[in-house]
Amino acid sequence: MEIQTESFSIESHSRFEILSVTPEVEATIEDLGVTDGLVYVSTPHTSAALSTNEYEEKLLDDMIDKFKEIAPPDEGYYHDLDHITAGEQPNAHAHLISAMIKRPVLLVLRDGDLDLGTWEEVMFFELCGPRERTITTTILQ
Amino acid sequence: MEIQTESFSIESHSRFEILSVTPEVEATIEDLGVTDGLVYVSTPHTSAALSTNEYEEKLLDDMIDKFKEIAPPDEGYYHDLDHITAGEQPNAHAHLISAMIKRPVLLVLRDGDLDLGTWEEVMFFELCGPRERTITTTILQ
Amino acid sequence: MEIQTESFSIESHSRFEILSVTPEVEATIEDLGVTDGLVYVSTPHTSAALSTNEYEEKLLDDMIDKFKEIAPPDEGYYHDLDHITAGEQPNAHAHLISAMIKRPVLLVLRDGDLDLGTWEEVMFFELCGPRERTITTTILQ
Repeated sequence: MEIQTESFSIESHSRFEILSVTPEVEATIEDLGVTDGLVYVSTPHTSAALSTNEYEEKLLDDMIDKFKEIAPPDEGYYHDLDHITAGEQPNAHAHLISAMIKRPVLLVLRDGDLDLGTWEEVMFFELCGPRERTITTTILQ
Repeated sequence: MEIQTESFSIESHSRFEILSVTPEVEATIEDLGVTDGLVYVSTPHTSAALSTNEYEEKLLDDMIDKFKEIAPPDEGYYHDLDHITAGEQPNAHAHLISAMIKRPVLLVLRDGDLDLGTWEEVMFFELCGPRERTITTTILQ
Repeated sequence: MEIQTESFSIESHSRFEILSVTPEVEATIEDLGVTDGLVYVSTPHTSAALSTNEYEEKLLDDMIDKFKEIAPPDEGYYHDLDHITAGEQPNAHAHLISAMIKRPVLLVLRDGDLDLGTWEEVMFFELCGPRERTITTTILQ
């Protein structure tokens, strides 16, 4: 088995933001010159998440609303006490939401095509931005 | 590394329904004639989910109740506005629940046996049925 | 592709408990003598979970609080009726929380190093303890 890895950075612009990274993943695959294999897309951040879903503008708003409802950012979490004292942005909510939605993205690559569903995109969930974030594409063949 | 893929269809019969697809996955593996490898079970749908859990009838009811409580189908989501105008079934709740529960199912196959836990089954979660849905089994060896 | 598997046991000490198993996973990798490959960490239990996140003591308390809030242990689930009659500990909440947070943990191993993020640990979530639990490390190379 051969393993190839390449990372790219993205920039989020607000505290909560959902970005499609399908183009960047496809560009990485093209860059690595691979046409067949198993593609694993991941992010090492614990206050953000990666997943797949339908990338529809209004649905993104619904998602952010729902995640904030489930784990409101300003709920006085124990983890945030030190952050707040230090004048930093609290981020416990981001870890909690990540615990619920983050998952490894696995896609089968065949003849240069990823087996994404009709409405499916690889999506990065910024839960504690704005920041620069890293996403890694690993190809097994 | 060799990658083999085979898909099957299932039919859901109501809006919310949880189906065990362990028999279909096992039949696919037998069909492909593979006895050792890594098995990846996936579904391309973004308003449904795949996971593993205990397939116990009453627990399925508890799961559906809980998912509906977390993301009620008729909460007036932005994503549903156009669907409702067009006379279609709203499905934002299905995308939201999928974002929370969907995960890639990975199983190790050894001497023809899948390493499922004692109570563990591969389960398909219909969140927006009834429909015909596709599930794909990918085997790496 | 070569697949190697090794399991280890951990002991949880209370009903809800989050344990870092990064040291055990790293020890398994060293034990198997592998320096490069894809590492898949899993648990077969359906009333527990495995994931990655920041292992910070106060955040662990926040997580347990949040999971209990989302699926309270004593909510009178259908699944628990038989358990309670039999004098056993109810566990529907554990299956529900597992459905929401469990995910396969996949890590790339390069020159003996796992690609965990700065704050990222492999974490076992006991949702129905105390118990002895099994965790399996599978390495593909």
